[in-house]
Amino acid sequence: MGTRYAIGVDIGGTNLRVALVSEEGRIIDKIKMPSSGDVMASLREAVERLGREGVAGIGIGVAGLLDRGSMTVLKSPNLPSMSGKSFKELGFTLPMVVENDANAAALGERWMGAGREYRNFVLMTLGTGIGGGIIHRGELLGVAAEVGHMSISADGEKCPCGNYGCLENYASARAIIEAAVKALEKGANSMLRECCMGNYYKISPEDIYRAAFEGDGLARDVLKEAGRYLGIGIANMINMMSPEAVILTGGLIGAWDIYIKEAIREASRRAFAGLVEGVKILPSALGGEDAGILGAAALILHEEKVSV
Amino acid sequence: MGTRYAIGVDIGGTNLRVALVSEEGRIIDKIKMPSSGDVMASLREAVERLGREGVAGIGIGVAGLLDRGSMTVLKSPNLPSMSGKSFKELGFTLPMVVENDANAAALGERWMGAGREYRNFVLMTLGTGIGGGIIHRGELLGVAAEVGHMSISADGEKCPCGNYGCLENYASARAIIEAAVKALEKGANSMLRECCMGNYYKISPEDIYRAAFEGDGLARDVLKEAGRYLGIGIANMINMMSPEAVILTGGLIGAWDIYIKEAIREASRRAFAGLVEGVKILPSALGGEDAGILGAAALILHEEKVSV
Repeated sequence: MGTRYAIGVDIGGTNLRVALVSEEGRIIDKIKMPSSGDVMASLREAVERLGREGVAGIGIGVAGLLDRGSMTVLKSPNLPSMSGKSFKELGFTLPMVVENDANAAALGERWMGAGREYRNFVLMTLGTGIGGGIIHRGELLGVAAEVGHMSISADGEKCPCGNYGCLENYASARAIIEAAVKALEKGANSMLRECCMGNYYKISPEDIYRAAFEGDGLARDVLKEAGRYLGIGIANMINMMSPEAVILTGGLIGAWDIYIKEAIREASRRAFAGLVEGVKILPSALGGEDAGILGAAALILHEEKVSV
Repeated sequence: MGTRYAIGVDIGGTNLRVALVSEEGRIIDKIKMPSSGDVMASLREAVERLGREGVAGIGIGVAGLLDRGSMTVLKSPNLPSMSGKSFKELGFTLPMVVENDANAAALGERWMGAGREYRNFVLMTLGTGIGGGIIHRGELLGVAAEVGHMSISADGEKCPCGNYGCLENYASARAIIEAAVKALEKGANSMLRECCMGNYYKISPEDIYRAAFEGDGLARDVLKEAGRYLGIGIANMINMMSPEAVILTGGLIGAWDIYIKEAIREASRRAFAGLVEGVKILPSALGGEDAGILGAAALILHEEKVSV
């Protein structure tokens, strides 16, 4: 019998990633496209390109709230064009499974990444938005785990999701950029002003880390403040799920030494001492890029039981 | 073979309840004492009084953070005298199991109460403090579920637990009393002023509901504001655990028509529409008194698997 493969798909707020994954968890080939275009068409094309003998099915992780049975995206605040779409439209004949992207990333870390040693952990994806996935007794809890849409500021600003004061509004990449731009508009002195040929509305999170690591006060303040809020969210998750580890993934972990360190400090100060003492707060071991793809593939290759 | 029994114990912020429970879930006899005295001595005495042939063991639900193996209360903000105590000290020869009181209440509702029809629900105990228990796929998740110590106000007041802006500080019985007293101190006009022979520092939550149901503006405002915060906590739990139901128990559900109705309104407005639409928000079917006892007994009688 030849090798078994699965196609793992990760549809996040910014990118669509499609990969051929072997049953040993190796990524054989990978296609990456922006998720701003026609996602369904791009996905069909990528699957056709990667398909080969031995592919057992297609696992899809997608940012948003899903109906697993009908494979429909019910709501996706960071991917509005996907709302209401069903992956059944694709007409693939291979077996298909859909899961929330952060849940898939949690499975990926459990299989091949930083979660291999833990039976109970919370994964948080830190990017444009903030997502979550919960592994309990080694299995993915098939719950929403919308960590980014936990209100941590009762009377905070309205979030596009309908709630107010969501964690995502204070600790995500979007929040960090907004905070930096607001300060620049008010005239704050910062090297970010020279960024993007003077158009600071184009600043990226990477521009902000870079400035912070070079000692820019505004960039450091913005990252620290976002980290403080992230720490509040982490403390809430520790008090709720008493995990052995919290695994952090997504682009923002690039700013570990400022943003995440501040989050760890804040979480340690706030969560129940008896719970937080033993908790490891760790970066993804899959570079923040591949966890979702691998987890989505695991849904097929391991007929991964999702505990719904 | 005769009937099997268990002794179920519920040690909450105000009362210690010990009962003899049959394997059909009937409470045969029950002893209730304040939990302000020597809890260990009261517990030993009650167990001796209720003991009889056929008792398979003692299940104990206790407010606080536990180490299940050593049966030690690590921290109990609402029962400070219990912190550091181990139930092994009691020297009972019967099998013994300890669990968090709100977790035990969730099991009790699952066995004999409002949770019988649901495989996935969140239970919240609304009393002096706020606790939580999570039933997932019919089983108790052995996690902390410290719902009352989720921060919903990032820069809110410090909670005795060490966190800031905890739900418990805005939506518990203690918070309701504090808000009423504060308003009375400031001179607010209210029938509560006549309460407790003029000493409004002795006001109970029941005094506040009673005044509210008689139309007292201050009492209504205080309950509604607490209910609004409770709704924020419920919305967070819905976005996190996507349950089929949220079951509410504890003394405060006596104020259902004001406090809980406001909470339901706020939760419906805030949680993801796709999640909250299907969620039933229900009162305990065990009168808020017996859920913990029954769940604690179930730990013995069903050798209830707790999914740790």
